[in-house]
Amino acid sequence: MELSINLERLKSDLTELAQIGRDPNGAISRPSFSKTDLQAREWLKARIKSAGLEMRQDGAGNIFGRLEGEGKRKTIMAGSHIDTVLNGGEYDGSLGVLSALECLRRINEEGVKVSSPLEVASFTDEEGNLVGDFLGSRAFIGCLNCELLEKGITQFGAPLTEILKGTDFTIDSIMNAHKDRPELEAFIELHIEQGPILELEEKNIGIVDKIAGKNYWMCAFTGEAGHAGTIPIEFRHDAFLGLADFSLKGTHFVATKHYGSMITIGKIHLHPGAFSIIPERAEFTLDFRSASPDSLDAMEKTLPQIANDIATTRGLQFNYKTIDKTVPVEISRRLLDSLESGCKKLNYSYMFIPSGAGHDAQILSEVTDSAMIFIPCIEGISHSPEEKVKWEDVERGANLLLETLLSLA
Amino acid sequence: MELSINLERLKSDLTELAQIGRDPNGAISRPSFSKTDLQAREWLKARIKSAGLEMRQDGAGNIFGRLEGEGKRKTIMAGSHIDTVLNGGEYDGSLGVLSALECLRRINEEGVKVSSPLEVASFTDEEGNLVGDFLGSRAFIGCLNCELLEKGITQFGAPLTEILKGTDFTIDSIMNAHKDRPELEAFIELHIEQGPILELEEKNIGIVDKIAGKNYWMCAFTGEAGHAGTIPIEFRHDAFLGLADFSLKGTHFVATKHYGSMITIGKIHLHPGAFSIIPERAEFTLDFRSASPDSLDAMEKTLPQIANDIATTRGLQFNYKTIDKTVPVEISRRLLDSLESGCKKLNYSYMFIPSGAGHDAQILSEVTDSAMIFIPCIEGISHSPEEKVKWEDVERGANLLLETLLSLA
Repeated sequence: MELSINLERLKSDLTELAQIGRDPNGAISRPSFSKTDLQAREWLKARIKSAGLEMRQDGAGNIFGRLEGEGKRKTIMAGSHIDTVLNGGEYDGSLGVLSALECLRRINEEGVKVSSPLEVASFTDEEGNLVGDFLGSRAFIGCLNCELLEKGITQFGAPLTEILKGTDFTIDSIMNAHKDRPELEAFIELHIEQGPILELEEKNIGIVDKIAGKNYWMCAFTGEAGHAGTIPIEFRHDAFLGLADFSLKGTHFVATKHYGSMITIGKIHLHPGAFSIIPERAEFTLDFRSASPDSLDAMEKTLPQIANDIATTRGLQFNYKTIDKTVPVEISRRLLDSLESGCKKLNYSYMFIPSGAGHDAQILSEVTDSAMIFIPCIEGISHSPEEKVKWEDVERGANLLLETLLSLA
Repeated sequence: MELSINLERLKSDLTELAQIGRDPNGAISRPSFSKTDLQAREWLKARIKSAGLEMRQDGAGNIFGRLEGEGKRKTIMAGSHIDTVLNGGEYDGSLGVLSALECLRRINEEGVKVSSPLEVASFTDEEGNLVGDFLGSRAFIGCLNCELLEKGITQFGAPLTEILKGTDFTIDSIMNAHKDRPELEAFIELHIEQGPILELEEKNIGIVDKIAGKNYWMCAFTGEAGHAGTIPIEFRHDAFLGLADFSLKGTHFVATKHYGSMITIGKIHLHPGAFSIIPERAEFTLDFRSASPDSLDAMEKTLPQIANDIATTRGLQFNYKTIDKTVPVEISRRLLDSLESGCKKLNYSYMFIPSGAGHDAQILSEVTDSAMIFIPCIEGISHSPEEKVKWEDVERGANLLLETLLSLA
């Protein structure tokens, strides 16, 4: 008999977890270490134990459930995160954790013998509500900056140290979390696509072959303020028009020269910011990403050139500083082959697809072979209560994860 | 002997008034009915009285100093305002009030006989720190909206009714202020240019021949939010890129088709406003002005067309609402002739110039012939502690005002 997951049980787990931190409009808010997150953690620990797995928690609050193997091989891990953005949805993160739990539960209850130990993992603050993305997985691989943690102000206005007071964790315990890490053979994360491609291409499964690297920059054009009624247009040094020009030229550059890469300006502040004053300064966030290291390098080099050319033409100054940076990740051939064989065996349609969003799998790729399975999400919507999936896609994603874990273990 | 103003005394008045509400960086903040404004009002009333003028205050807090004439003719008025924007400069407004005071003081102390009564006027809240621009002059001509006053929230967060509690004025007294108004023959306002033209053209005096009309609109493009890493550029409906496109096309349209008219986007808010979320909504202020009624009409019609075309192309929605609107004013031929003769007589170089900023003179033009004299200000800077003038320009402006008042009276 072919082993497969119990969809009804997985549905029930996803639905139960989605009740925690849900508001009357259906939006789910479970930022890490909030009351709702602490409640979700207790729920998850209980589910791990009742599945007969060995529950473990490290100093960063990452939660694991372990099924021992018969050989002395390294651990194969699958998982994601159960924290959410504010006003998020049911599946981003939770799908990967609870599907992995379901896989291990099926293996355990059927008494299937595996050589490698298997673990389900749930990483803290993937969404970066505290001090930067991927706190938990970064702690797990041991690449956190202690100063950032000590001085970091969370998006809730309180320093991280203040927020940790309500928990069992400290800066020290977070910094030391990586010392508990078992040796890993592979990490696999099942996740919703968060984009429209699989739905448009009518594929059941996306096998992620690359994870985009990204740059977060804080940028500004600076010009001269002036009265909106008295400074003729040709005398102006309007910082906002510099930004407008840059946004169109920068987007055109990326769309035409680096197809598949992304550029986004998500937040703007104009100074002094009044109806009748020409903007002296336009501050803005710049997020650009690519799965191709060459494209990312080219954008990093060319975008400031475009901005500086505009600044010269318009009599402005341009400057930027890097807030965060991750590098693109190529998924190992071995895991891609294993995922592709799984799709063929299970008769699922699939395509290779890059991931534009960052994921814990990207962080873990620094210490082990790391791979991702995407399933379609309706209209590509995520980070929203409108985030939706089809249950048959959930079933296929979880069965491919199970198949892959068994073939590796 | 030709009558001329006493520059040292005018300098001393301007310098004394500039101490009130000045911070250590030199910026002056005297929003109407603030503590500093109330102090400035007491100072001005005392100066009017000590000049031997009859001091009068109306129900809107407008302050007048009157010199009776020998005939039974209508009143000739000159003035401006002593309130400032937050962090403003020394001359915007104060120059017009204190120069008019100096003119009347000279006429009075020399015992020059005039047929028409002369008045210096200082109007409340020209800068619109409370509920819209020109509160005082609008009250003076009787065209205020009572509901706006009763419901209006000032930029300080408190309703107008709350702010009036610290003063001798009420909504009723403001609404009735126009009943005290003397019949007017003419109104003349001396003001700094607040632009670079006179300095560039090396002219002593600008005779304002038109005052621009303006529209304040609150606008928004609405598109679709999405993850900055997962929604390909060609699938996006990025509200900010719609705004960027509009700002460049709208500015190009005004600069090329309506030369001399102005368009400014001074304030922007993107929703939801985060590094890695494609903006769903871009709200922005739009300020456009012209001294030509035809240009203003054309802009009012064409700018929404440009925005709607962009919205159609980019899969966005565009909408706007009018927040404020004033119509362009043509200065009466009689006053232009009088100002031109004055320049010739005094041997001042001059040019005709439109005013892009709104002024009390524009409001008073609805009830009397109204004119403005501009003097150069350094680099066109105003609404800033960097606002500067040359004293010889102040002297010329005030002497032209004196000459014009005498020729009219």
